[in-house]
Amino acid sequence: MQTREINNNQKLRLQPLAMPQRLLLGPGPSNAHPEILQAMNTPPVGHLDPAFLGLMDEIQSLLRYVWQTENPLTIAVSGTGTAAMEATIANSVEPGDVVLVGVAGYFGNRLVDMAGRYGADVRTISKPWGKTFTLEDLRTALETHRPAILALVHAETSTGARQPLEGVSELCQEFDCLLLVDTVTSLGGVPIFLDEWGVDLAYSCSQKGLGCPPGASPFTMSHRAMQKLQQRPTKVENWYLDISLLSKYWGSERVYHHTAPINLYYALREALRLLAQEGLENCWQRHQKNAEYLWKSLENLGLSLHVEREFRLPTLTTVCIPDGVDGKAIARKLLDEYNIEIGGGLGELAGKVWRIGLMGYNSRPESVDQLITALRDVLPI
Amino acid sequence: MQTREINNNQKLRLQPLAMPQRLLLGPGPSNAHPEILQAMNTPPVGHLDPAFLGLMDEIQSLLRYVWQTENPLTIAVSGTGTAAMEATIANSVEPGDVVLVGVAGYFGNRLVDMAGRYGADVRTISKPWGKTFTLEDLRTALETHRPAILALVHAETSTGARQPLEGVSELCQEFDCLLLVDTVTSLGGVPIFLDEWGVDLAYSCSQKGLGCPPGASPFTMSHRAMQKLQQRPTKVENWYLDISLLSKYWGSERVYHHTAPINLYYALREALRLLAQEGLENCWQRHQKNAEYLWKSLENLGLSLHVEREFRLPTLTTVCIPDGVDGKAIARKLLDEYNIEIGGGLGELAGKVWRIGLMGYNSRPESVDQLITALRDVLPI
Repeated sequence: MQTREINNNQKLRLQPLAMPQRLLLGPGPSNAHPEILQAMNTPPVGHLDPAFLGLMDEIQSLLRYVWQTENPLTIAVSGTGTAAMEATIANSVEPGDVVLVGVAGYFGNRLVDMAGRYGADVRTISKPWGKTFTLEDLRTALETHRPAILALVHAETSTGARQPLEGVSELCQEFDCLLLVDTVTSLGGVPIFLDEWGVDLAYSCSQKGLGCPPGASPFTMSHRAMQKLQQRPTKVENWYLDISLLSKYWGSERVYHHTAPINLYYALREALRLLAQEGLENCWQRHQKNAEYLWKSLENLGLSLHVEREFRLPTLTTVCIPDGVDGKAIARKLLDEYNIEIGGGLGELAGKVWRIGLMGYNSRPESVDQLITALRDVLPI
Repeated sequence: MQTREINNNQKLRLQPLAMPQRLLLGPGPSNAHPEILQAMNTPPVGHLDPAFLGLMDEIQSLLRYVWQTENPLTIAVSGTGTAAMEATIANSVEPGDVVLVGVAGYFGNRLVDMAGRYGADVRTISKPWGKTFTLEDLRTALETHRPAILALVHAETSTGARQPLEGVSELCQEFDCLLLVDTVTSLGGVPIFLDEWGVDLAYSCSQKGLGCPPGASPFTMSHRAMQKLQQRPTKVENWYLDISLLSKYWGSERVYHHTAPINLYYALREALRLLAQEGLENCWQRHQKNAEYLWKSLENLGLSLHVEREFRLPTLTTVCIPDGVDGKAIARKLLDEYNIEIGGGLGELAGKVWRIGLMGYNSRPESVDQLITALRDVLPI
């Protein structure tokens, strides 16, 4: 049967997996809840097994709860948060559509790049990284650009700023456009009322506020967004993320589309179950309380925070690196000597801030204490 | 902070996860090796952690080994097999390219649909489901269509047929086209010599021959394919799967692209480690031996097989459903009463065959014995 010699050049002889134990206080992933991790070690069933289809229904329902939406089309995409982001763009943008993106950080820019690849006529409004848009800013931009879609980042993971969304949908109705929102760093950790806020498309991830490992990512779309999809004359330019196909797998037809990452869905189901058990309002309050404890503790160390208090995310805090301090060296020291991960700045904020996440299972006073103790050791103060 | 009432309509009160224990003998997923599952229950580290970057290098090297290629650009895509399939199409097809697809099953058709979405001028050659193409068939089609890319399915998961690839690359060189190959149901279980066979683009999955849960999927491309990507004047129409971005994360630059599904990469690394420990040739032989035992056992029950012996995949066997037998009812009975999953037919073979997989960890005589015992009970023979 086999006719050729095997090439063993690339054959490694490895020891069983041994990874370091880190406290993940960067922009994500955060540590997963032990019960969620344990669920990953459950033997997979098939992706069309009735037991698995029941689990998919549970995920859908609980995702609606954490997003506060009744959108029937609320699912998990089989990829990380970026795949869910791309799913919102791919399924809403038609070639030539004007898409207006609010850019005040790295992920606004990513939306610009992505929408362009799907043939959008992309326009932007910008603010310095860490700032947010007012309703007045948005009204002016909508008047100028008259977009088919307005895309905003609710929680900018690169800056730690929270974009208020109250009143935005009224503007979108006035200017007849869809509202697309990034909730990657807010879902589960920051108050979100998707239906009240009139959001048409949203995406998130599993490894931040939900306290789950990464790989299965929340996606939702409204009836209005669904209508635009149904009326488009051309196929969605992405097979894997085509909601008109995916909805037949997640919906009552149960048509095979792809082999879902079964064990990640187990984990996501457990993450959502634990969140519902805690209660959404309690979970939000916990994130807020621990963030305030972090902010106070950092300020007590003499550090200052990049974002104005009113717009700060409880899930992610940007800390100004003091003059003369090598931010990268400090972060590396925390990792190597204390097993604590924090993040550095991106783009406009590269070298200027550290990013500290308190998300999901890691949003606990003990996380703050452990970090502050280590920072006290390593900072030249 | 929180101003609105929480809507609890979609809040479920669930018990901890409890899934049935199945023997997965369908077209995939197959059961994961217990050590691999256990690795999923390892706390995640960050996607830019030096320990994780080292693990990515191990995955790359071992993927090259199991595919028998030296392609530097050999990585795992952060999605299931379909995402890796889409990665090969998205990064090789430019609008207007003629793409010739060999269609003799469901996954050939999927390639047609996908390539069309990326603007390809798609041409097909077809065979009845379960048959394969000869070099003569391919030469004639290449002469007629003069494609930029020839796409073939090495292991057609919908039919159980193995498409021989010896001699195809000589044709592709003669007609100056790239060779793209689906190895979803062959990697790890069927002899593959990617470099010897001159394959330019290939993809696979984790949950079949590698015996890993689904969600992180092998992808590789040759220097020739890379050149086509580098020379294209437009961006790849897919951000998540853009290899020009992904290669900066997997390569020496280590530029952040997306948050990898950390725990799935742990599992994939363990799956590849165990495969290397067994030895690729031993693993192929085990698959072949257990498949032959299955074939003999099925024939002893009076059942006949759909694919000619010479072209049968050891990983997936299509069994003809006897006249008068309700194939769906039998499969459902195996699942409900024996916790054994087998698959049904798709497309041309719907209602005509069962699909029985013996892949990765499940390629063992015990799997065959358990299935045959159950079939003896439930079949009206």
